[in-house]
Amino acid sequence: MVQRVVRQVRDTNLEADITLATNASQHDIIINQLGEEVSIVTEPERRDTFPAIALAASYLKLHKQCSDDEVVIIMPCDPYTENGYFETIGKMAKCVEKDVAELVLMGITPTYPSAKYGYVVPGADNGNEWLPVARFTEKPTVDVAEQLIAQNAFWNGGVFAFRLGYIMNIVRKYMLSESFEDTRSRYGEFPKISFDYEVAEKAQSVAVVPFSGQWKDLGTWNTLTDELHHHTIGNATLGPKCENTHVINELQYPIFVDGVKDLVVSACPDGILVCAKKETENIKKYVEKLEHRPMYEERRWGSYRVIDDTTYEDGSHSLTKSITLLEGKNISYQKHYHRNEVWTFVEGEGIFVLDGVTRNVKAGDTVVILAEHWHAIKATTKTLTFIEVQTGNPLVEEDIVRTTWDW
Amino acid sequence: MVQRVVRQVRDTNLEADITLATNASQHDIIINQLGEEVSIVTEPERRDTFPAIALAASYLKLHKQCSDDEVVIIMPCDPYTENGYFETIGKMAKCVEKDVAELVLMGITPTYPSAKYGYVVPGADNGNEWLPVARFTEKPTVDVAEQLIAQNAFWNGGVFAFRLGYIMNIVRKYMLSESFEDTRSRYGEFPKISFDYEVAEKAQSVAVVPFSGQWKDLGTWNTLTDELHHHTIGNATLGPKCENTHVINELQYPIFVDGVKDLVVSACPDGILVCAKKETENIKKYVEKLEHRPMYEERRWGSYRVIDDTTYEDGSHSLTKSITLLEGKNISYQKHYHRNEVWTFVEGEGIFVLDGVTRNVKAGDTVVILAEHWHAIKATTKTLTFIEVQTGNPLVEEDIVRTTWDW
Repeated sequence: MVQRVVRQVRDTNLEADITLATNASQHDIIINQLGEEVSIVTEPERRDTFPAIALAASYLKLHKQCSDDEVVIIMPCDPYTENGYFETIGKMAKCVEKDVAELVLMGITPTYPSAKYGYVVPGADNGNEWLPVARFTEKPTVDVAEQLIAQNAFWNGGVFAFRLGYIMNIVRKYMLSESFEDTRSRYGEFPKISFDYEVAEKAQSVAVVPFSGQWKDLGTWNTLTDELHHHTIGNATLGPKCENTHVINELQYPIFVDGVKDLVVSACPDGILVCAKKETENIKKYVEKLEHRPMYEERRWGSYRVIDDTTYEDGSHSLTKSITLLEGKNISYQKHYHRNEVWTFVEGEGIFVLDGVTRNVKAGDTVVILAEHWHAIKATTKTLTFIEVQTGNPLVEEDIVRTTWDW
Repeated sequence: MVQRVVRQVRDTNLEADITLATNASQHDIIINQLGEEVSIVTEPERRDTFPAIALAASYLKLHKQCSDDEVVIIMPCDPYTENGYFETIGKMAKCVEKDVAELVLMGITPTYPSAKYGYVVPGADNGNEWLPVARFTEKPTVDVAEQLIAQNAFWNGGVFAFRLGYIMNIVRKYMLSESFEDTRSRYGEFPKISFDYEVAEKAQSVAVVPFSGQWKDLGTWNTLTDELHHHTIGNATLGPKCENTHVINELQYPIFVDGVKDLVVSACPDGILVCAKKETENIKKYVEKLEHRPMYEERRWGSYRVIDDTTYEDGSHSLTKSITLLEGKNISYQKHYHRNEVWTFVEGEGIFVLDGVTRNVKAGDTVVILAEHWHAIKATTKTLTFIEVQTGNPLVEEDIVRTTWDW
């Protein structure tokens, strides 16, 4: 999704510098997806959209030294949309440059009376590309949504344009800071509130620029599966009594589904979801309760997958991973205090360092790394994969000391 | 299921010698479940119920030297039933001893007009515990089933009683053999036909002994989940919009289910099933098409689970297992021609042999076993678990030479 959106921004010649605001855990995967062509601002913790935007704005102001007059566009990274959407963003920027309002947002022409979006009710048409905003209505009932649509209301798609100085004046109400690093370290001081409530609903003047092209929020399985070209992805079989059912299987176990209608099955190392499509809007609050270590993570050097994580009756614990490095990439020179690691190389070749001694390794080789011994590995073929068996107590990602090795 | 049935046979003082007829792949798991208290006859290949019963009868006649007068009871191992069922079997044996018919079967009082069972239509009541059988009707439509029930028809639950000589006369029509081993090696000569068609429907005289107690065929998920006390087993969560839904999860990945009704989700190392309960009668023909090596197997020494099985882009292959031995048990002294194995012990203690040299091993130890080197392992604690990483080509169970080690 993020690759597509960034490509579309480039395709429409917005000449924009892109900054991605995201959670720290997403940093490496975004670098892997986009390379170094975007800036990344990571939230130290999850709060809400106003703090996230305040942090990104502080980055532009305090780190990038942008001027107060610069036009900033805030947009989500997951709309499934066409290039006209980005052309509309261009019009929004023009509206800010002409100072038609202190805040300009995109109004998406509704296709049905959804209860899951916020609505923007416009004022009188003034013959321009933009309309004044009369009021906002957050997630109305379907009945109210029908009435709003009869009044030419738009969906609020979460795209905003304003001058940097405008948002920084609001940020400074909560935090006076001389540096981005200071702002980030004090991130917890920002209130947990959405950008819509803290900024949009309090703004003195708001304009809306309509967009009536194709637009989908792919944030639920229901909308995402609408755009999939196949009913199954991965090792999955649908029986003859399935209707409008999608299976996405990232696991090695085969999945067989039959006798169901309007269902999505999604299986990956983090868990298995079986859900009526119409209920997928509501799963977040239950899924957040599933306590679980990450079972798959992308890193700047490649990726790993947990293939076994078992605590035995006698209290012993083992964690087994399949780890893949990309050519030329390496993990940092590191050691652990509480665990041994056994690496069996199963594909590719690389250079392994143990306590300052390097050796070449290839599929079939095994190395044993005892606790407190320094080690690193670098891939010299397209990919290098090894199975890592960890033993010890505790087995946690945090048991690591890192330094660098001069390759 | 097999433990419960064997326990019920013992509880009702049938004083029976039990012989289990099963597929060869089930041999070790049955020994683990029942110990040595039953005899096991394994079919070399899957044919049908007549060949399986013919093989078991040949075992009793040719290997156990039973006399032609001995009463033999054939019963399935998966009825969910009460002790009255086994008391009825006692009555059936008495009927055979009194020679009321050459074949005696159990008639189960139907509880609904099922289309999935065979029906037994009785003749006139003779005032005895048994009735003569007028005719059989295999899997009728629901309408016909209703008419049959109105004629006091029974379900055929697959329980038969006869003298050993009776069935051996039929077996000898297909195969004259002097030894059980010879019969077993020529198993493919028996026709692929059910016992009902080959024996019951051709019998000169058949009697039926009614049973009207609790009886369930647990052969489908639909009937099995009716008897489960909890809606989830294992790491599984049901959302608030689930009705009559069961999740059985043997995997480590959490499962979340919502918005579904009358569904069963069953996840184990061999695959993941998501199926409407009423369709679970029909899954067999689809599931048989899922080509897959066994992902979990019980052995006489313990069990293993495949945790990763990956073929890489460059053609390399690795297979990773979690292997658990039970106390005092050992794997045979063995070697492989085409693979290396790396074992990292993660729980318990044992004795490891490599090329004739023994050493003690415990959690945290690693051993590397290169191709063509002899090795064995024995557990000395309650359990001993190790992670095995196999590399080489091909990685197949058949690449093994076994001998014994004198522990």
